[in-house]
Amino acid sequence: MERMIFFSGAHVREAVSPGRALEAVREAFVAYARGDWTMPPKVYVPAYPAGDFRAMPALGGGHALLKWVTSFPGNPARGLPTVTGLVLVSDASTGMLKAALDAAAVTALRTGAAAVLAAETLGRQNGTAAVIGAGVNGEAAARTFVARGREVQLYDVDAERARAVAARIGARVADSRKDALTADLVVTVTPGREVVFGTGAVRPGQHVSLMGADGPGKQEIAAEELARVRDFCDDWEQASTGRTPGRGRIFADDWEQASHNGDLVHAVDAGALTRDDVSQLGDVLIGTAEGRMSDGDITIFDSTGLAIQDLAIALAALERVGELDLPALDL
Amino acid sequence: MERMIFFSGAHVREAVSPGRALEAVREAFVAYARGDWTMPPKVYVPAYPAGDFRAMPALGGGHALLKWVTSFPGNPARGLPTVTGLVLVSDASTGMLKAALDAAAVTALRTGAAAVLAAETLGRQNGTAAVIGAGVNGEAAARTFVARGREVQLYDVDAERARAVAARIGARVADSRKDALTADLVVTVTPGREVVFGTGAVRPGQHVSLMGADGPGKQEIAAEELARVRDFCDDWEQASTGRTPGRGRIFADDWEQASHNGDLVHAVDAGALTRDDVSQLGDVLIGTAEGRMSDGDITIFDSTGLAIQDLAIALAALERVGELDLPALDL
Repeated sequence: MERMIFFSGAHVREAVSPGRALEAVREAFVAYARGDWTMPPKVYVPAYPAGDFRAMPALGGGHALLKWVTSFPGNPARGLPTVTGLVLVSDASTGMLKAALDAAAVTALRTGAAAVLAAETLGRQNGTAAVIGAGVNGEAAARTFVARGREVQLYDVDAERARAVAARIGARVADSRKDALTADLVVTVTPGREVVFGTGAVRPGQHVSLMGADGPGKQEIAAEELARVRDFCDDWEQASTGRTPGRGRIFADDWEQASHNGDLVHAVDAGALTRDDVSQLGDVLIGTAEGRMSDGDITIFDSTGLAIQDLAIALAALERVGELDLPALDL
Repeated sequence: MERMIFFSGAHVREAVSPGRALEAVREAFVAYARGDWTMPPKVYVPAYPAGDFRAMPALGGGHALLKWVTSFPGNPARGLPTVTGLVLVSDASTGMLKAALDAAAVTALRTGAAAVLAAETLGRQNGTAAVIGAGVNGEAAARTFVARGREVQLYDVDAERARAVAARIGARVADSRKDALTADLVVTVTPGREVVFGTGAVRPGQHVSLMGADGPGKQEIAAEELARVRDFCDDWEQASTGRTPGRGRIFADDWEQASHNGDLVHAVDAGALTRDDVSQLGDVLIGTAEGRMSDGDITIFDSTGLAIQDLAIALAALERVGELDLPALDL
């Protein structure tokens, strides 16, 4: 009889701390950059205008993964979650199903982990941190900053929600949206219906992790601002100070995904941004691409969410099977 | 709290009889042909030489479906199933996950249903029936013939397995492979490592449902035999009898899938078969394509297995939720 272990959302959170999630996701980006882990393109199943379903496969660490997950942005208004579904993990050598995990919990952990991993890798050391958007994944990003020992301020259009989440996780509520947007490390986790960073909004030295835009019609930064950042260079101002001049640098979790479904798509479609303008986070981590070179650099990270991140969290959860009381299902 | 229903393989079989499966699959082919149900292409996750995983999405009947399923042909030799995985069903209007079902049981039911549906639609009325291959899906095909009131003979290279399965489902063991191959309606459900029908093997009047070839390197009929059947015409012999002359006719569940991963791929790659030579089963069912026109026709049906068939079985199972004692899982 085949048997599969089931992780509810609570079980996933019990099994994998935000700190462990960050380490696991870092290893996944490294394995993906080295070509050890692979990822066929995700498939969108459109059910617009309500939302869409995504089937996201990955292969690595002796396992095959499939995440079946939704994005239904209007759901919270009717008391339902935006993101829901299951993560399935199978043994790659026998094909046997090993576990099913709540997709919302896995997604939150890996999204928070990627946001903070990018901020730590690409942002200024010891910089101040802010998270814009206190939904499920915004909370996860703020929680990951806290777990990494960094003070974080939280902003949400719903002030009550920002207060409740901040109190729960030990973050500070931002005095204003404008205040939050001036932090050294800014993570945006919004529904992507409105641009957060318009033309000229990102300041020299700042890092921004854009986590919200992962599908058609979603956008957190203006295409013109991406083009401006790409061309940003303060040679002239800094010539007299002797410091390394600040440049604009643009990063993505994965060029293919980001240029088709991420924040980059608008600038790419307009011809304002090409593959050569964008580095992948994993390539920075393994040293084959440049990261931040100066405190004056602007760094932008566009995250669309990768199935290899989900695989990292799922495998971290499976490591804890022996310690947790989990239900097993006979197929 | 979100809650999902779980169907083990036994629950799936309890919920959906072979007869119900055939009716549900017929409706799915009709809805797909009419464009009411849709199906993004399936994604293969290769783990060769051991096998592969497939992520198969579908949308229809107010639901979105994802099947995560394996084909590991060497598994039976080590006591493991070839096909394993889960079928996930979500509400298309809210995105909420409704059920997970054992993929092996769903696959067997819908494969048996498609084999017999094609044989009934395209084969001679009251013809004799045979199934070649008594594995999980071959057993399902034979069981579906029996459920439809048709006598069926069963052949397997493993004579003991053929005997055991035949006894279990009320079929007759074929006297020989050659005998089975001369039935009016032949269903092949083999691993596809060896061609079952070589050049000249299919006889006038015969229908063949080829169920085994659904991925790289699998083949149950020679490319030359497909080309011969396509050109088959007995005008000359039948001119004196006054009967409608027999023609060769080739069908598939879906041209896209069959021409890329089915039995047709070899003939298509060789340029011996084109889109115009092949009709889709659903188009015959809704009357926009010709089926069998004469008792002398040869009809070949190439099945690769469609996610819309899985959706049909899953929705039929969900209709029975109130009558069955099924475990519910909190996400």
